[in-house]
Formats: sequence, C-alpha cells, structure tokens
Amino acid sequence: MKKTFDYIDQNFDSMVAELQEFCKSPSVAAQNLGMKETAEMLVNIMKNAGIDARIVDNEDGFPVVYGEVKGEADKTILMYNHYDVQPPEPIEKWKYPPFGSEIHDGHLYVRGCADDKGTLLSRVQAIGAILKTGHKLPVNVKFLVEGEEEIGSPSFEKFVHKHKDLLKADACLWENSAKDEDDNPVVKLGNKGMLYCELHVKTGNTDVHSMNAPVVPSAAWELVEALKSLRDETGKVLIDGFYDDVLPVCAEEEEAWKKVPSPEKGLKKRLGIDKFVNDATGDKVNIALYTEPSCNICGMSSGYTGEGQKTVTPCTASAKLDFRLVVAQDPMKIYELLRKHLDKHGFENIELSLTSAAAPAKTSVNEKFVKVIERAAADVYDKPLVVLPTAAGTGPRDVFAYSGMPIAGIGCGYAGLLQHAPNENIRLEDYKEAVKHVAALLFRAKDEDIV
Amino acid sequence: MKKTFDYIDQNFDSMVAELQEFCKSPSVAAQNLGMKETAEMLVNIMKNAGIDARIVDNEDGFPVVYGEVKGEADKTILMYNHYDVQPPEPIEKWKYPPFGSEIHDGHLYVRGCADDKGTLLSRVQAIGAILKTGHKLPVNVKFLVEGEEEIGSPSFEKFVHKHKDLLKADACLWENSAKDEDDNPVVKLGNKGMLYCELHVKTGNTDVHSMNAPVVPSAAWELVEALKSLRDETGKVLIDGFYDDVLPVCAEEEEAWKKVPSPEKGLKKRLGIDKFVNDATGDKVNIALYTEPSCNICGMSSGYTGEGQKTVTPCTASAKLDFRLVVAQDPMKIYELLRKHLDKHGFENIELSLTSAAAPAKTSVNEKFVKVIERAAADVYDKPLVVLPTAAGTGPRDVFAYSGMPIAGIGCGYAGLLQHAPNENIRLEDYKEAVKHVAALLFRAKDEDIV
Repeated sequence: MKKTFDYIDQNFDSMVAELQEFCKSPSVAAQNLGMKETAEMLVNIMKNAGIDARIVDNEDGFPVVYGEVKGEADKTILMYNHYDVQPPEPIEKWKYPPFGSEIHDGHLYVRGCADDKGTLLSRVQAIGAILKTGHKLPVNVKFLVEGEEEIGSPSFEKFVHKHKDLLKADACLWENSAKDEDDNPVVKLGNKGMLYCELHVKTGNTDVHSMNAPVVPSAAWELVEALKSLRDETGKVLIDGFYDDVLPVCAEEEEAWKKVPSPEKGLKKRLGIDKFVNDATGDKVNIALYTEPSCNICGMSSGYTGEGQKTVTPCTASAKLDFRLVVAQDPMKIYELLRKHLDKHGFENIELSLTSAAAPAKTSVNEKFVKVIERAAADVYDKPLVVLPTAAGTGPRDVFAYSGMPIAGIGCGYAGLLQHAPNENIRLEDYKEAVKHVAALLFRAKDEDIV
Repeated sequence: MKKTFDYIDQNFDSMVAELQEFCKSPSVAAQNLGMKETAEMLVNIMKNAGIDARIVDNEDGFPVVYGEVKGEADKTILMYNHYDVQPPEPIEKWKYPPFGSEIHDGHLYVRGCADDKGTLLSRVQAIGAILKTGHKLPVNVKFLVEGEEEIGSPSFEKFVHKHKDLLKADACLWENSAKDEDDNPVVKLGNKGMLYCELHVKTGNTDVHSMNAPVVPSAAWELVEALKSLRDETGKVLIDGFYDDVLPVCAEEEEAWKKVPSPEKGLKKRLGIDKFVNDATGDKVNIALYTEPSCNICGMSSGYTGEGQKTVTPCTASAKLDFRLVVAQDPMKIYELLRKHLDKHGFENIELSLTSAAAPAKTSVNEKFVKVIERAAADVYDKPLVVLPTAAGTGPRDVFAYSGMPIAGIGCGYAGLLQHAPNENIRLEDYKEAVKHVAALLFRAKDEDIV
C-alpha cells in the first residue's frame, strides 16, 4: 500500500492533467452534447490504467461503459459511476469557463469534476497506481459507468436487469460523496427516493381581463389552493397515507446519526439564511434532512410575470413538485395517493403528470463492507469517516435492490463543491485522498470480510 | 336629427375609411410607439370634423389632445377618451395583422378599434356629421383625449387638476362601453377602483438542490401560504378591515341591477367555462361582477418553469395582485391593511410594492344626464339601453370626483370585442349606431335637462 501511495504522490500532477482533459470533454446528457466522444475517451483512459474496458451496447439510451480487472481474491467490487454531467447554464455565473478545466488556488473548476468525473477517475487511477506499482489487483473490480444519471437514468434499470450476470458482485461502491461542512470524509449508505410530477390547472380557453375576477374561475387561485392543501406550515405532508410506509429508524442507525456533525452553521452561511424550517438546529437538522420525506415546489407559474402591470385572470397555472421519499415509501403509490388527495379536495380537474419516480434504498450501517471502507479511510484521512446512513439526494440505487449487495458511496468532493451549480469545483488535495482511499479499500478487501 | 342620420348612412364608407387609417397608426403607450404621430393625426381628423383641436403641453407624459366646439345652448359636455392602445402581443395569435385595419365579414380587426379609437372617432364623426348637415352644434363640446390610459394614466390626475378651468363642463361622456351578451346597448355609470401591487419573497441568496427541502426555507411555499391567507375558497378577502368602507347598494341602484341581463350564458361560452365562481347564476353574476370587490392573481412565478425536471428549492418567488374596489374603498388604505395582514400572519419578510392605485367612482342612476342618454339611445337602437350602475373595470373617473358632474360611458363595442386581447374587433353596424347615438344625444341635450 505504501508503494502505491508513494506512486500517487509522485505522479499526482499527471493524474490531475488526465482528469483535466477528461473534464474538458462536455458530456451533457440533457443537451445530447459530446456523449459518445466522452464515453470513448473514458474507455481509452480506463485501458491505459490497465482496465479491460469497452462500450456496451445500450439501444435505449446513451452509451454505457463497462470495465473489469481480475484480482487475486475471489471477491468482486462493482464501481457504479456516470460520465454525464449537468448542463453548465447559467454560463454567465461561472468565474472560469465551465469546460475550461482551470486550476486556481488548488481548486479545479469545471462542470462535472465533482459530479461525477472526479470520483470516477479517482477509482480508475487508484487501480492504475496499484497495477503500475507491481501489484496484481487485490480483488476483482467491475465498472459500470452510465451516461444518463443527470437526466434520471431512464434506461438504467432495463440495462442492469438485462446484464445481471455481467454485473454480479459482492459489494458496490456507489458513485459519489463529499466531505461535510467540517471537512470530515463521508460514506453515504443510501438515497432518498423521489416522485417528480407536475400539476396543470386549466380553468378556461383564454386568459381574461381581471375585471371578470369576481365570477371567472382563476387557475392561479386554484393552484394556490391545491398546493396549500398538500402541506402544513411545518412541512408535514397532508396527503392521506403519505407516511404509512415510512420505516422507523433502527437503533444502530440512530447511533450513527448521533455521530454525524450537524451541517447547520456551514449551510446557513453558504445559503445566506438565518434559520432552517421549523427553526431546526443541531441534530434535528440531520434528522430532518436525511430521515424525513418532503414535498418541494421546484417551480410554479401562472399569468403575467413580465415587467409592470397587466390585469389578467389566468386560465392556466402549473407547478413542478418533488416529493423526497424514505424507506419504504413507494413513489408510484404516493403518486396515486396524490391523485386521490386532489380528487377528494375538489381538484378533480387538475391534471397530474408523472415526470420521474425513484424508490428510496439504503444499506445497513452494520454491513462489513462499511467497516472496511471505514478502516481504509483511517489509512488516508486525518479525520474520522462519517457514516451517513443515507444521502439527502436521490439516485438509482434501488435498481440494485434485487442483488441484496451492500452499496456505499465515497468520493472526492467537499462541502463547497457547487454540484449542479455554476463554479462546480473540487480541491486537488481532496482528490488525492480520494484516489488513496480507493486504493486502500482494494488492498484491505483482499483479506478482510466485505460481506 | 333625421338629416344628420341620413348623412351618416350615406357617408358611412368614408367614415369607416377614416377610422381604418387612424387605427393603422400604432400608439402603444407601454412601448412608447407612435404616440406623438398618432396624437398629431388625431388633431387633424378633429380639425377636419370642425373641432378646434390642439395638443396641450403635458410635460409629465404623452401628449394630451384637447378640442372644443361652441354650441347653441350654454351647456357643455366633456368627452373623455384616449388614443393609446394596448400592446398587440402575442402577435402570432392574431388572425389578421394587429395594425392592418382589415375588414372581414363586417368586422374591423385592429388593435385599439374597440378600446378606444372607435368610440373616440364615433364622437368626432358625429360632430362632423352634425356640422356638415348645416347645423350649429346644439351644445358646447370639449374633448379631453389622453395617451396613457392603458398604462394606468400616471400623469392624468395632475393634468386635470392643472386644467380645471379649461375642462369645466356640466356632464361628461366617458370613454367607452360595449353591447352586452344579448346585444343590448349599455351605458356605464362608474368604475371599480383598483390596487395593483406585487409580493416579493426572498428566503436566501441562492436556489438550492431540492434535497435540502426538509430544512431550507422555500420562497415558493412561503408565497403559496401568504397568498392563501388573503382569500377563502369563495373569493372572500380575509384582510382585516377590507370591507369596512364598502357602501351598500341603494334602492334605485338595486332596481337598475334587476334590469341588467345576466352575462352568464354568453360569457361562459366565450371563455369555455362550465361554471362561475361560487356557482353564481342569473342575477348573482352581475351582483358579483359589479358590486363586489375582489382579489385577483394576475401572475406568479417561482423556481424552474422550463421543460422537464429540475430539482431546486427556490429562494425567490413573486406574485402580481389586483384588488378591484367598490365605492367607497380607498386603494391606499387597502394597501396599508394588506401590509398589516402580511405582518400579522408571519410574512414580515415579504416585500410589498405598489404598482398603481385608483379609487372607485360612480354616478347615480337617477342623474338627468343618464335619462337623456337613454332617450337618445331609443332614437337609434331597437333594443333598450341597459343602465349599468358601474363597470367591472377600472378607469380614472375618480379624477373628476372634485367636479361633481355626472359621468356616463357609451361606446361602439360588443360582447365579442376582445379588448386587450388578440383579434380585437368591432362590428361596423355597431359603429354606425354609436355615431348616431352621440349625434342624438347632442341634439337632445340642447332642450332637455342634462343636470
């Protein structure tokens, strides 16, 4: 391990240069930009690292990159990552060109460096470093790199189910993680689920002069009333049955939560806010953020929203909602409950449409794989690894629910990474630690129990 | 009168041609388009009709056109109109070019023909017809034609107060009216008042990934909650003191309301709606439309409203509201009550800004001037004149409250005029009747009591 760590230290500049080149290649799935080119570049980078990589036919969507390396022990770790990135817009808010891959003050600025190209290459380069320092890989590794994560992984489930044999593994290293507000490294053991849907209100054929407001139904008011019926002021969702399937947090998980530092101070400062919902402080911030489902308005609009005065009673109004769900809420069941709720409250005419649905999923904090990741972290990091029983965000972990394997996410980010936002960046020192963490994990996985 | 009516019948084609030319000249106050040119064109048209017309200096805004003709009797009727028009957008929804002035199936299609250039020229051409058929004008007439009605008449009050002597009159013919859904001609004796304002919610410095929704305050939810607090499902406004200054409808006005046909059927058909607010039918439609104040959402927006899925918790949200007010509600008092309401309900941080304010005003149904207008209508129309104690819309009638003179609106529109909307149009037959109605009124005003 020491030899490999030294190799990483000595060759870090060229590893960063390779990451910069990879990130320069735009791969915006939402805009169908540079997808094939980036997938091919990735295959070459993986091959150079000693990984047997190839593009696997995926007739339903963007190319999937698969790779494998045989190891000494008869154990297999599957690496799940994605090479697609979020759109760079709004471009005018970037300090440096979004695909410029510029380094300033030890930070690399480029769309996708944090989510997820950095974490992806940290794994590829960790394997390269092990192989180049005269070792055989300690365990078998498989790579599954999709190109549709940022658009909701529409063809992923079908792909995985079609290639169950190819993807068979004992444990899975999930795509990403980031240090917390106190710079502790973090492993994430789950994702919330999500139901994303839209409400469309139509009360007539045409917007009318607002002098008619006393008698003509208003789509704007109907939307306000429908939205208000969904949630009380504390954020509690008022849909009948919404919480029925929420599983209580078990004792071990409760213990784990107690060890997770509250993001309160750092998050408030970054967002410019004085207080959280329901004045949550300390532990309660984590409990709310990670264990409670939520109903969020991503956007809403109705009528005239330009400059100045226009007197109109709008005949259409719409809202985009996301419900974040926890184990074992079922997004499609929630979708049905929402429809029933609207009907019951007199909003039968509101059209409800489904945008995407993902089930929540989590791995137990007691899994042996998690312990190995923890011990490997101690080989690299000065600060202890924080075990986050679930992430606040959503991802397609539930697709692997059939396999029963433990799934844990580690990565190269930090609290200021600006994922999905302008000025996405990583710190190069974090990146180096992430490469070493993967290497340490692979070394340990040979002799320690991962399941 | 007969000679003048014959003249109108015989010269109607050239009168329509003049109206077409006048309407072709765009005069969009909101876009500062063609204002001076149109004012000058109007002065020429008025002069050709025999009216002593000129542009009066209005340093605070768009040119005001003033005109006068001395009459036989020592009585003066002031004509209030405006030459500015609404913006033509959305242009793609017009069947014919918005400033093309095309005639199809007896309808003239052009922005401003109904509101208010048609009514304005019907008055100018009525005077022209009387003078050209060898008469002296029966009474004195003054014209006050502003260019800012469609942007809320910002400099009108100051202008009127500055020129009180010039504008002195016994009665005022207000800018506009339109036949009702049953094609009865209508005289409008009042305007509702209006408070137009905006709510701006800001909960932080930046929109955040919606995985943070359980703890990060949402501007969208705060706006929904604030809006919902303003109004119940029946449309009743929940602001303390909102209804305190509403004067009850007097017995004579109640009688008048009973004679006003309900717009129910026609309005529902045109708007493509099945039912009105609170299932109002028959008389209740008029009572709601004309005698009740209202709170309307003209527009609202927050967060992501583009295509597809974006998972964001918005830090800003805003809404444009108009409150239609009835006698004797005071818009600035309502504005203060609204601020108090927001503060009382925990929305101290919501910024409230005033866009415009206009007081309600109405003339009694018992005024002699109204009776003369009714008798003049009987000279022209087959159907009886409907006396509408107030219009549902807003206008600067209250600016003349100081004068105490009766103010009544008649015009050339019909129920399908699409005022403020694409495909604004008038029917040429209605226009001819409107010209004759003005002529008849002027003849009758000489010998009949107008006050």
